[in-house]
Amino acid sequence: MIETLYWKDDKLFMIDQTLLPFKEEYIVCSDYLSVVDAIKTLKVRGAPAIGVSAAYAMALAELANEDMFYVAKIIKSARPTAVNLMWAVDEVLSGLNNNISAISTANRLFLEDKETNRLIGKYGSTVIEDGDTILTHCNAGSLACVDYGTALGVIRSAWNDGKNINVIADETRPVLQGARLTAYELHRDGIPVKLIVDGAAGFMMQQSHIDKVIIGADRVCKGGIANKIGSLMVALAAKRFNIPFYVASPLSTFDRDSNINDIIIEERNKEEVSCIGGNYITSNDIDILNPAFDIVSSDLITGIITENGIVNPF
Amino acid sequence: MIETLYWKDDKLFMIDQTLLPFKEEYIVCSDYLSVVDAIKTLKVRGAPAIGVSAAYAMALAELANEDMFYVAKIIKSARPTAVNLMWAVDEVLSGLNNNISAISTANRLFLEDKETNRLIGKYGSTVIEDGDTILTHCNAGSLACVDYGTALGVIRSAWNDGKNINVIADETRPVLQGARLTAYELHRDGIPVKLIVDGAAGFMMQQSHIDKVIIGADRVCKGGIANKIGSLMVALAAKRFNIPFYVASPLSTFDRDSNINDIIIEERNKEEVSCIGGNYITSNDIDILNPAFDIVSSDLITGIITENGIVNPF
Repeated sequence: MIETLYWKDDKLFMIDQTLLPFKEEYIVCSDYLSVVDAIKTLKVRGAPAIGVSAAYAMALAELANEDMFYVAKIIKSARPTAVNLMWAVDEVLSGLNNNISAISTANRLFLEDKETNRLIGKYGSTVIEDGDTILTHCNAGSLACVDYGTALGVIRSAWNDGKNINVIADETRPVLQGARLTAYELHRDGIPVKLIVDGAAGFMMQQSHIDKVIIGADRVCKGGIANKIGSLMVALAAKRFNIPFYVASPLSTFDRDSNINDIIIEERNKEEVSCIGGNYITSNDIDILNPAFDIVSSDLITGIITENGIVNPF
Repeated sequence: MIETLYWKDDKLFMIDQTLLPFKEEYIVCSDYLSVVDAIKTLKVRGAPAIGVSAAYAMALAELANEDMFYVAKIIKSARPTAVNLMWAVDEVLSGLNNNISAISTANRLFLEDKETNRLIGKYGSTVIEDGDTILTHCNAGSLACVDYGTALGVIRSAWNDGKNINVIADETRPVLQGARLTAYELHRDGIPVKLIVDGAAGFMMQQSHIDKVIIGADRVCKGGIANKIGSLMVALAAKRFNIPFYVASPLSTFDRDSNINDIIIEERNKEEVSCIGGNYITSNDIDILNPAFDIVSSDLITGIITENGIVNPF
């Protein structure tokens, strides 16, 4: 597995996920604003990875003797939907209140993330049967976390348990995390994966080619989850064809106080849609809407796989 | 409206739809094989346009004194799912049996297609209300026909009737007919259109931004219709959010003898998925599945808008 991020010599190193799978290049952040920029521009993405990098951003601010409450506000505003960002920054602030340095908290979250994903994998593997073909959307893989992954952690765990599985990866427009990251990291680990366009997920289920769906989550709330745009349509197709639909998510992504219909859905820039790899796919005078997430209601979710076991949506 | 295809000086002129919206360039076909190639490579696409160009391909073969039954077989094999291809070639053969030249039949189908689309538009406009926002998938527009369009013909007709409507166009991966063709032809005609990625259609409905869905069809059979990959997931989302889901289709696309589950779904080449505008979006050692169509079952369809009025799926 490739390392998503690590701390070394008072700096945060993160693989630039916008360059994958064609270049494996690390960016080096020596101040918190460069981490904020990396989060905004999706050089680092995935709820758990965003959380841990936010904690390290706080550690960089601590080293520079910044006003930590001010910095906390800036970091939290980098992306509005992923709750791990708020959670990780609050963990650091709460540590500071108890004389625990930001870097100590960041290192703890880093290690906990690894452990959490292995537990999610262990519990998740129990629902995967030998011979299953599993569909996933976006990238809830090692690259979305410190390593191992949530949804792909379940797949890795089932594979390591000796189960003969196949994965179907949605390409996940607009940013193509499925085509660029999921296909790449599974193929790199020798786990059989086939790529499809997002619109083909329903057809694959209609033709009985899918046994389970597993996706990650950016926020788990009362009434459902928020996850990458397109997750809702995958869930509706799974419901139609009676295919179990699982969400793999650490408890740090849970936001038990909010109703899913009240959260802010991030709207991103139109170039993510209109421009692919430097090429425009439509005239530049065409209006574009680019919501980054949608909502999968609780009734569409079979179970949420956490580090404490599989729980019901609430 | 741009001309999709026309016959002049014993040649078939077709706008090269693979170059749109960036270049408006016509290809000139002086033999039937170049039409077959244009159909295979999507230079011309859309069920009605494929039908009419296939009839003109027969006319080119007639001019060259080819064996018409042999040529018919070659033309029919260009694409397996669009039934208009088979229908148009059979119309020409049946004409030949009655001493009607291929060019006469082709010219008749050309004129009938224009008239048919206007009638579809007229009937379809009755279900569109002032203020509606209409979602469409792929391109069932003037570019899919001789002109005017089926699904977009309904939208054009409602617009021309003075209804204040908005259109949301799915980009429609892999070939991006929504981004390249639908957005382009509606914008060119001054009809308000916004582009989204395919995965965002469900979210738009979830947020109550869509009042109606209208798509075209490549084949209408017992039990449902075949249409561009992704149509099924749009239909499932429409069902979930109680949004009327219409199919606009000429009767030439009806195949009353076949069950929708028995038809062949075309599987196209992997480069359509992996390569966008010359840029690869994934490593070239990744396996890809690329089904071109999926099936929308009759229970998901509110009505089928034809040149004879709105009929129930069967």
